[in-house]
Amino acid sequence: MAYRKTPAEIRRLDTARERLVARATEVVAEVGWAQTSVTAVADAAGIAAGSVYQHFPSKAALAVEVFRRAAGREVEVLGEVLHGPGDPLERLARGVRVFARRALDNRGLAYALLAAPAEPAVGAERLAFRRRYRALFAEVVREGVATGRLPAQNDEITAAALTGAIGEVLVDPLGTPADDGTDDLLADLTALALRCAGAPTP
Amino acid sequence: MAYRKTPAEIRRLDTARERLVARATEVVAEVGWAQTSVTAVADAAGIAAGSVYQHFPSKAALAVEVFRRAAGREVEVLGEVLHGPGDPLERLARGVRVFARRALDNRGLAYALLAAPAEPAVGAERLAFRRRYRALFAEVVREGVATGRLPAQNDEITAAALTGAIGEVLVDPLGTPADDGTDDLLADLTALALRCAGAPTP
Repeated sequence: MAYRKTPAEIRRLDTARERLVARATEVVAEVGWAQTSVTAVADAAGIAAGSVYQHFPSKAALAVEVFRRAAGREVEVLGEVLHGPGDPLERLARGVRVFARRALDNRGLAYALLAAPAEPAVGAERLAFRRRYRALFAEVVREGVATGRLPAQNDEITAAALTGAIGEVLVDPLGTPADDGTDDLLADLTALALRCAGAPTP
Repeated sequence: MAYRKTPAEIRRLDTARERLVARATEVVAEVGWAQTSVTAVADAAGIAAGSVYQHFPSKAALAVEVFRRAAGREVEVLGEVLHGPGDPLERLARGVRVFARRALDNRGLAYALLAAPAEPAVGAERLAFRRRYRALFAEVVREGVATGRLPAQNDEITAAALTGAIGEVLVDPLGTPADDGTDDLLADLTALALRCAGAPTP
């Protein structure tokens, strides 16, 4: 008869896995993908390196999980803002601002998610998540066009442009320590996003 | 006394290296980074796999050289157009169009350069090259503002946005076979770039 885990064992394993992902995310935020070793993560979690492999078959699999969790939270937050109250342009502006603010508040992790060289498995996740951002932006641009707040346009192209533009604008600021320029950056980036979507200049 | 290569030997090695990079670029364009093995490149160049290592210490080093050469050509072409005749807005529009047209004419290679998951060394090159694109775009945006053709703006942010936007807009088209939509795409992408830079709507 095959060995079956008891509910208590499953709970214990799940808790340990969650803890491991949380610690790994902190390590990635602090030192980046390249410097994040299984040993460093195990040390941070207070377990043996071998125990990491009980939960993830490889460093790449752990990296993918870290990416999915952290990027997934950002997609979720952006989606909530873009689907929230307000007219489409207000929501677009607020979405860009919230996304950028969150990234700038957690620069190490945001840089890892958006830009830092990483193994191919993480690169593939990045492409997949950019698709989700594009879908969210396309929706709000379509609404803007439908309600006459934005001029007719190819919403898929605008959505891709917003996704690429926001990421690239943040690369340098995320790679540098926090400074006084954040408010200006947020204002400039929001203005840029509205301009790209063809919003009338205020 | 250290062995010193004769001029004829150096020429022979240089020619062999050039040939190898050219063949490797073709392989990458055809099958992508992930499927490009040293063996596949050696086969394409008609040499033994071991001979590849006479020229490049690792697959990553070869990949970086392929990236630099191919991306370097695109930066050069874009720079020529952006520095060419015409007012800043015309040059910006022409630059975007030429860049995108060249990418769409060589989809496999352009996808590898712009988006495909790749080893970290290639990811680092990508960041470095995006910086060069941004510098070129910043220059033409600054000229546009200085000549009154564009409204006052943070040119570095606009340049980063253009770089990110163009890349992201091209990801999906580059990942699909050539179709009839190229002219529309080029028109939409150019319009978008001008809008992002704040050009008056035509």
